[in-house]
Amino acid sequence: MPISKGPQVFPRTEYLRRLAAVKEEMAQRDVDALVVTEQAHVTYLTGSTARSYDTRGLVVSARQEQPTFILRWMDVPAAFQETFMDRDKVVGYPEELMGNPSKNGYDAVIDFLLEAGLANGGIGLELGNLSVDAAEKFKGRLPEARIINFFDVITSIRNVKSDLEIAVMREAAAIADAGILRAAEVISPGMREADAIAEIVGTLARGANGKPGTWIATPFLCASSRIGTPHVTWSEDVFRQGSQINLEIAGVRHGYTAPICRTYSIGKPSDCLLRIHEAQLAGLEAGLDSVRAGAVIGDVAHAIHRATERLGFKKRSRPGYGIGIDWGERTLSLQEGNLSVLKPNMTFHMHLGSWVEEDFGYVISESIRVTESGVEVLTKAPRELFVLR
Amino acid sequence: MPISKGPQVFPRTEYLRRLAAVKEEMAQRDVDALVVTEQAHVTYLTGSTARSYDTRGLVVSARQEQPTFILRWMDVPAAFQETFMDRDKVVGYPEELMGNPSKNGYDAVIDFLLEAGLANGGIGLELGNLSVDAAEKFKGRLPEARIINFFDVITSIRNVKSDLEIAVMREAAAIADAGILRAAEVISPGMREADAIAEIVGTLARGANGKPGTWIATPFLCASSRIGTPHVTWSEDVFRQGSQINLEIAGVRHGYTAPICRTYSIGKPSDCLLRIHEAQLAGLEAGLDSVRAGAVIGDVAHAIHRATERLGFKKRSRPGYGIGIDWGERTLSLQEGNLSVLKPNMTFHMHLGSWVEEDFGYVISESIRVTESGVEVLTKAPRELFVLR
Repeated sequence: MPISKGPQVFPRTEYLRRLAAVKEEMAQRDVDALVVTEQAHVTYLTGSTARSYDTRGLVVSARQEQPTFILRWMDVPAAFQETFMDRDKVVGYPEELMGNPSKNGYDAVIDFLLEAGLANGGIGLELGNLSVDAAEKFKGRLPEARIINFFDVITSIRNVKSDLEIAVMREAAAIADAGILRAAEVISPGMREADAIAEIVGTLARGANGKPGTWIATPFLCASSRIGTPHVTWSEDVFRQGSQINLEIAGVRHGYTAPICRTYSIGKPSDCLLRIHEAQLAGLEAGLDSVRAGAVIGDVAHAIHRATERLGFKKRSRPGYGIGIDWGERTLSLQEGNLSVLKPNMTFHMHLGSWVEEDFGYVISESIRVTESGVEVLTKAPRELFVLR
Repeated sequence: MPISKGPQVFPRTEYLRRLAAVKEEMAQRDVDALVVTEQAHVTYLTGSTARSYDTRGLVVSARQEQPTFILRWMDVPAAFQETFMDRDKVVGYPEELMGNPSKNGYDAVIDFLLEAGLANGGIGLELGNLSVDAAEKFKGRLPEARIINFFDVITSIRNVKSDLEIAVMREAAAIADAGILRAAEVISPGMREADAIAEIVGTLARGANGKPGTWIATPFLCASSRIGTPHVTWSEDVFRQGSQINLEIAGVRHGYTAPICRTYSIGKPSDCLLRIHEAQLAGLEAGLDSVRAGAVIGDVAHAIHRATERLGFKKRSRPGYGIGIDWGERTLSLQEGNLSVLKPNMTFHMHLGSWVEEDFGYVISESIRVTESGVEVLTKAPRELFVLR
């Protein structure tokens, strides 16, 4: 029997609004057909969050209301169930394109463009995301097309969320909070880092307020001796009395990702740890105080850096970046010198991580939303250095 | 204080052996310096498993014993701790390359190649993995270099594991088994899919036999009404009496990934489900019986397809692919017509998934190793259709 539509995360009008914004950018760039290949953009434009490592492409045609999603035949039912699109807009390619050194799913996308009479116009490709081999396939098989780089155009559109998206990000943030509190409950001397992770990822799946997590974003648990570096997942070590734990996790709802960082100390924190907590917290609060629609992004970063420096810590890394589907959004960087202006419903991970020595660092962060008059802090976990025993 | 080396997953000689194999391929292709950008290849050649979405590159020079890992400054301590390399072989690039539309970490890699006098020779790039924008940066800033596509060369080297790697894959497989058994214990009518996932990913983190999981590979839990499609993660639904669950998970140890699939029925399975289980199990067993060093891969696939067809089910998808670091290895495809020959210590995910209708499918699979005389099945969970209540 054919599969039926599942519950939709957003109403059809929301997807059509997003597609209209994309089509406006297509028109400005003389793009007749856009081939979307980045997973987060596919989620944004269709609602699809099912994963596959097989090649696939979403074709947005200037002349069609709905896009066409071309993917491996076995993934068609999931795509139809999850997305708002009509049955004939989800097209499976055959198994023969698998494990084939010369052909893959992009050949099916190109066949579709040829059959739809789109091969002689402007074709948008996400060249910052598409591999060289894939791009050469498009260029080779579409010799009459004008190839236009559409990289990060959709990322920029995604930067400003709708109120519907913000509601989902609040749900994701509540899950992140639950993970932070669960870590505070369970971490204890003698416990393996992996057992703490088990509790944390379990919480991220169970979710909060009756809304489960829909994905496990990679958790980063950097404990002594790895607190001077941010991107270790976890190790085979055991927590000890005196261990410090820098934790960065995220809640996820339907792709929307709300990260948060907190630092934990098993037993009495060192003076140095207390001082950096105070400095980074001051930086975070200075940043939150300076956020509002119309503020210059670089000025927010400046306020953060000056506040931490007043308390004796020079933060080397940028204090944040835009967030949304699949964690970071490349086109919003919270850093000094950035002259872009904040808009309402932009969302950021305001990140006061500092890795000051190879064996010492500290993290605290929030997921935030820009409002007309200030800021909404989406994550609500206590803004403290957690002291455990 | 400087961070010190952590416990190494493999001895230094193992990494030097792998590097020697890569350098042999470089010599054959007249490559003086290879820029490795694929995460799985970096793990293979160095032991690094820390993750970051920032650009980074591992430069293998024909003239140097050790490669040089160039990455964001904050990731240097993790890379030094995890890898076998000397201190000066882990090089951080500055924060200024972050959030910069015209420059990124690849500029630091190119600077390194220029300073090392490697800019006029053959430069290998993984063009099937590298974005067009990145490749253009390399070509633009290294106009005197001969760019040579090294895509999937390392993947092919990875296909045949050492005994040390096989030992780690056995550990990963035991974790996968534990996840399958945990699912059988906890899944029950009225439970949310997310709560089952919480138990499963918790088990994948805790690991087996005292060896924790080191990563959570994405679990795929496709339950009624989504059993006709394979790549949904999980949904917000609740299991019911009569629900079927197709589960695909993997255990991970230090990057090495051992997947497994099993199907569960809450309550008495339908006749159709029992029949497909019998057919796919027969296919799996026929496949296992035909695996041995020297066998032609296509013949193994043929045996699988014929066995399922004899019992009335035509499997549309290829029955497997090579596995190792980060799940799949693109260069080994278990499919009919593949004339490649099995070698000892190749590892596969032998996958008897069949999605026969949009609303009906079934999965059973094993992680396996090719031996001189036959096969070692790495995953050991009972090869059954789990009937739960």
